[in-house]
Amino acid sequence: MGRTKSRTGVGAGTIGRIPVRDVRPAVECGRHPAKAVVGETFEVSATVFREGHDAVAANVVLTDPDGRPGPWTPMHELAPGSDRWGAKVTPSAVGRWTFHVEAWSDPVATWRHHARIKIPAGIDVGLVLETGGELYERAAAGVPDDAQRATVQAAADALRDDSLPPESRLAAAFAANVDAVLGRYPLRDLVTASDPLPLLVERERALYGSWYEFFPRSEGTPQQPHGTFRTAARRLPAIAAMGFDVVYLPPVHPIGTTFRKGPNNTLSAGPDDVGVPWAIGSPEGGHDAIHPDLGTIEDFDHFVAKAGELGLEIALDFALQCSPDHPWVQKHPEWFHHRPDGTIAYAENPPKKYQDIYPIAFDADMDGLIQETLRVLRHWMAHGVRIFRVDNPHTKPVVFWQRVIADINRTDPDVIFLAEAFTRPAMMHTLAQTGFQQSYTYFTWRNTKQELTNTSRTLGEAALLHAARTPTSPGATPSRNSPNTSPNSPARRPPTCLAQTGFQQSYTYFTWRNTKQELTEYLTELSGEAASYMRPNFFANTPDILHEFLQHGGRPAFELRAVLAATLSPTWGIYSGYELCENTPLRKGSEEYLHSEKYQLRPRDWAAAEREGRTITPLITQLNAIRRSHPALHRLRNLRFHHTDNDALIAYSKRTGPDTVLVVANLDPHHTQEATVSLDMPQLGLDWDASLSVHDELTGETFRWGRTNYVRLEPGRAPAHVLHVQASPPQIGGS
Amino acid sequence: MGRTKSRTGVGAGTIGRIPVRDVRPAVECGRHPAKAVVGETFEVSATVFREGHDAVAANVVLTDPDGRPGPWTPMHELAPGSDRWGAKVTPSAVGRWTFHVEAWSDPVATWRHHARIKIPAGIDVGLVLETGGELYERAAAGVPDDAQRATVQAAADALRDDSLPPESRLAAAFAANVDAVLGRYPLRDLVTASDPLPLLVERERALYGSWYEFFPRSEGTPQQPHGTFRTAARRLPAIAAMGFDVVYLPPVHPIGTTFRKGPNNTLSAGPDDVGVPWAIGSPEGGHDAIHPDLGTIEDFDHFVAKAGELGLEIALDFALQCSPDHPWVQKHPEWFHHRPDGTIAYAENPPKKYQDIYPIAFDADMDGLIQETLRVLRHWMAHGVRIFRVDNPHTKPVVFWQRVIADINRTDPDVIFLAEAFTRPAMMHTLAQTGFQQSYTYFTWRNTKQELTNTSRTLGEAALLHAARTPTSPGATPSRNSPNTSPNSPARRPPTCLAQTGFQQSYTYFTWRNTKQELTEYLTELSGEAASYMRPNFFANTPDILHEFLQHGGRPAFELRAVLAATLSPTWGIYSGYELCENTPLRKGSEEYLHSEKYQLRPRDWAAAEREGRTITPLITQLNAIRRSHPALHRLRNLRFHHTDNDALIAYSKRTGPDTVLVVANLDPHHTQEATVSLDMPQLGLDWDASLSVHDELTGETFRWGRTNYVRLEPGRAPAHVLHVQASPPQIGGS
Repeated sequence: MGRTKSRTGVGAGTIGRIPVRDVRPAVECGRHPAKAVVGETFEVSATVFREGHDAVAANVVLTDPDGRPGPWTPMHELAPGSDRWGAKVTPSAVGRWTFHVEAWSDPVATWRHHARIKIPAGIDVGLVLETGGELYERAAAGVPDDAQRATVQAAADALRDDSLPPESRLAAAFAANVDAVLGRYPLRDLVTASDPLPLLVERERALYGSWYEFFPRSEGTPQQPHGTFRTAARRLPAIAAMGFDVVYLPPVHPIGTTFRKGPNNTLSAGPDDVGVPWAIGSPEGGHDAIHPDLGTIEDFDHFVAKAGELGLEIALDFALQCSPDHPWVQKHPEWFHHRPDGTIAYAENPPKKYQDIYPIAFDADMDGLIQETLRVLRHWMAHGVRIFRVDNPHTKPVVFWQRVIADINRTDPDVIFLAEAFTRPAMMHTLAQTGFQQSYTYFTWRNTKQELTNTSRTLGEAALLHAARTPTSPGATPSRNSPNTSPNSPARRPPTCLAQTGFQQSYTYFTWRNTKQELTEYLTELSGEAASYMRPNFFANTPDILHEFLQHGGRPAFELRAVLAATLSPTWGIYSGYELCENTPLRKGSEEYLHSEKYQLRPRDWAAAEREGRTITPLITQLNAIRRSHPALHRLRNLRFHHTDNDALIAYSKRTGPDTVLVVANLDPHHTQEATVSLDMPQLGLDWDASLSVHDELTGETFRWGRTNYVRLEPGRAPAHVLHVQASPPQIGGS
Repeated sequence: MGRTKSRTGVGAGTIGRIPVRDVRPAVECGRHPAKAVVGETFEVSATVFREGHDAVAANVVLTDPDGRPGPWTPMHELAPGSDRWGAKVTPSAVGRWTFHVEAWSDPVATWRHHARIKIPAGIDVGLVLETGGELYERAAAGVPDDAQRATVQAAADALRDDSLPPESRLAAAFAANVDAVLGRYPLRDLVTASDPLPLLVERERALYGSWYEFFPRSEGTPQQPHGTFRTAARRLPAIAAMGFDVVYLPPVHPIGTTFRKGPNNTLSAGPDDVGVPWAIGSPEGGHDAIHPDLGTIEDFDHFVAKAGELGLEIALDFALQCSPDHPWVQKHPEWFHHRPDGTIAYAENPPKKYQDIYPIAFDADMDGLIQETLRVLRHWMAHGVRIFRVDNPHTKPVVFWQRVIADINRTDPDVIFLAEAFTRPAMMHTLAQTGFQQSYTYFTWRNTKQELTNTSRTLGEAALLHAARTPTSPGATPSRNSPNTSPNSPARRPPTCLAQTGFQQSYTYFTWRNTKQELTEYLTELSGEAASYMRPNFFANTPDILHEFLQHGGRPAFELRAVLAATLSPTWGIYSGYELCENTPLRKGSEEYLHSEKYQLRPRDWAAAEREGRTITPLITQLNAIRRSHPALHRLRNLRFHHTDNDALIAYSKRTGPDTVLVVANLDPHHTQEATVSLDMPQLGLDWDASLSVHDELTGETFRWGRTNYVRLEPGRAPAHVLHVQASPPQIGGS
């Protein structure tokens, strides 16, 4: 054989001596890195097998950002006979890692299998023991430690010692101390390494955190209704006290006056109307400027510093669009679409016009736009912003974001980009795969009924099915001022029509996931393979989305969705007013807020609300405290669902190391519901017949549970049990 | 932007201007070629989308083995809103092709969408028409043909002619003749090409053919019982008359005498026992020699020539193992495993020994073994053999076969290798992906009950599920003389045990697919994504496998399995004796034949059998004739299943161009069964309410069918309807 036995390379097209195939996680065949955060455990798996019946084994090697391979982690076959091997690994530092799988022939295991049958049967006894002696001698030579090497060599010597009875010679080879050494330093023949795959390790905030969104301009004073960074900073201690980690601010830049919108999205603003923060740019500046009414850059710095003192990070909105008054319009006309009459094209979705917004045209000068974007982002980074919430990234070229984020993260790997994309799955997943650290999801989505279809007819096409079974209509995009509605989308055709044109299956989904089945399917997707590239941010509401479930379910609905968001997703958030259960829509059937803060100031009397008990602040504070104290809730890949016999009750758990949290929630905000919850005990790390002690972190009660448990939840009283699970000590006596 | 607009490359890690992702068929991310045969139509698909709402489009380009790109084939979105695009393509010649997908911005479609709304609404009329004029002028410039260019230019001129009413200007742009030109030469902006993917196009016999296996040595004469190639050639006209294409011969080489097996696999052969053809090698020669009792190489040449005259190709067995008497044993001791006492290791599966077989040891001199294998194969190729049936390839390194097949096909792309692998799916699929043109399948498998498991918990892990749901036990390997049984396989653990150790699902499969569900699932897998690399050969029996279904079902079972094999798979085959419904097992519970031809001569009195009506030759002849006359049966990817309301009746169709065949078979060999068959009419190329004329190619009857149809099938009378489907002319009058 023309190759060395160690790390026989698997070149393009050439299969290795021991096949290693389909190594995962691999994002688009390894073109993009799989992702994890520091300290996050994930499973590497591969298909490993060999010809004939000799034993194979496999291990994973993580190579750190400096190119140093770590110790290898042994893999085990995930299901007997599946040829699918896996091992859990945990990267320890931020940076660009790689991982690969090594498969190998395990001659000692093969020999042991034969010897265990042949020696007791008296077949080829001398030959078998002699062969074993040779093997153990070879194995000993590979043990670096002197004492341990001697242990294996002693076994080799015993195997060859024909003065001993065969049983003793064999026993020496199977001794526990020999096993221990060979477990650590096995004899590996025909070692075959997979190609390395990229792994991007980011800081923990990319996966885990609690977000609070508010408009500083609404936090004014009776004397000065338009808030400033100075007045808004007075709200920060309350946000910190609720246990939030990140404060997200809508755009803080000057707002255009041309075609400015009035309250409730009316077309003509009065002279005192404050306009929409996303209509960015005026003679006072563009994306790198502070709105004069909010204060100065020094006021902003003060706000960021105050937040930092309270342990709060600031996330800034980055909305790449311009009001007609933005300085770029004059300075960089090549960045806009020009019409034959020389005017600049405003946003439109015929026959609708959005004349207060000029979208960017990327193809005339993408390099220039990237440079300017980098300049703007680095400006805010220099002022303490390390998280950007990117507005409508799906209306800009994916390659633009890929280049921008790569450039920023090359020098500043701690900077996090959250994609506010509400669109079809292909774009959502691609944005996540090409750089965005976090993504808005279908947990937070307008209540548009969507028709989904697929042409998948085999399991092998499951990826297509996967892509096709999620919402599609661009009409569901938050409209704010952006041109993202397409009422003619074919996705609006009724599903029966699609079925009759030849599609084998069609799905109808409500985009906001409410039911047990919807939540289970969607979260199973998010916490499965998608978790290697897409990290969800579960906002329970946004300035764009007051879901009808909240409109009709009242306070119990707000409590429920907070529990779900805070415990299903490692990152969750609320937009201010959620504490107050604000739920008056613009009009019946709308999911816009009446008197939306997007168009006007919305001062809130927090103190009065607290006094009058109109807030769910205590629950939110509890949820964030529970999240902080339970490492299991900092993770996504560890989510598992459990059976309940009532579709109104959902049960799921997360387990990380010794920490296990089990949530049982009532999805019905109107009625008391009861069910028997059947726990998948191995998923809790327990035997099927174990008894467990569960402590309700919301009520302080403790229960003794087992495999099946009766649960009753009453809306308004308790939206859920959030249970800390511990194995009970065995009971003495009893029946 | 620093790149050209045409064919903006999608480099490693960098996404293109218009994302083109997940292009299929791609075998192991394009490391291995997807496969088709000359003239075989298959679908290329890709995920294509763009930012915002402008129109995108995509096309496929096939590039021939000389590197010449063909005309592009337009793709269409496979399901509305899915972002998944596809097009059917058909390669026209043998060789190594590539294909890629080009995605592009379609400014004319975007403009048309806007214009159709804005002009009638009177919005920006002049601007819209002027913009259209510019676009059409650009489009005209890209039309190579003068007359056609003038057509588009005329539309551009009309769009700009403000002496005309707006409706007329718009109408000029939408004229049918303009559409036709732009359909052929669209204006493509931001064209973004995927990486090219490899496509291996092979001759049609790799996909389609009818095989007949027989032992020439059994075709002797009363005077000379051991057949020769001369006497065996007298059987060829009957084989050709049955409509077979390929005659497959078990090994024709000298057979060893050391530890030769006697009749019925007994351990000691008498002096007249002929031995097992797979125990290859004696002092008279090895893999490149002819058994003297069969004749000379000239006799072999005569046999091949006779077959050729009858339109029959010869497939030769290639079994890479040796009897202890093989010349290699002395000449190449490095090709065998040596034990510490200097003896060569025979095949064994402790405590069983197979002392008549020495397996090959590949790792000491793989290059030497490859050279010798190539020499042997080219020797037989020079004598007219262009098909090899490779015995037990899964007991040899995959990389060995990959190198051997690549070398042979580089010079002789017409040579076909059939993998006789009966093992777990990972190995089966990998052998197909790395070179084998054809594969034995689980259609032909011993009746071992198998337990399958998987740890898949998300749709994204469907590939793992896919891999795990198929039979696993190496114990199911045909044992003949080879060491392929592993009674300790963990796959033998009961599924309940596996479920309790944490696996979410477990499957229990009978490896021979009998039931409607088994057949539907397995054939859906084979005809789906797997069809791009794996081509099934459905043998209804083999010398190793007399399935208990045939033992107990008698003649109706033989008829049924012949119909299924011949119509489900483009390649099917029988081992001689199937015509006679030979079904006596070695003993109760065994699936070996009594008096197996592997160990002894088995002369058959074909004439008497015909006389006495003991054969199903007429059915086999009919099936092969139907196969030849129906192009739809030459293909695999076109298989679709239809609903029946009785699990004993299976219904499926194949459609290629104008040819449609529909099969309804009774899976119960013991009882008459009836059902309503509900046709998936679009899969037949028909409207839901169409009436169709179906002609039973077996009985000659013609029926008028519609969407639902009553069927009754009686074993012994008709195993199935094999229906040629044609749309009926509409009926005049009627009720």
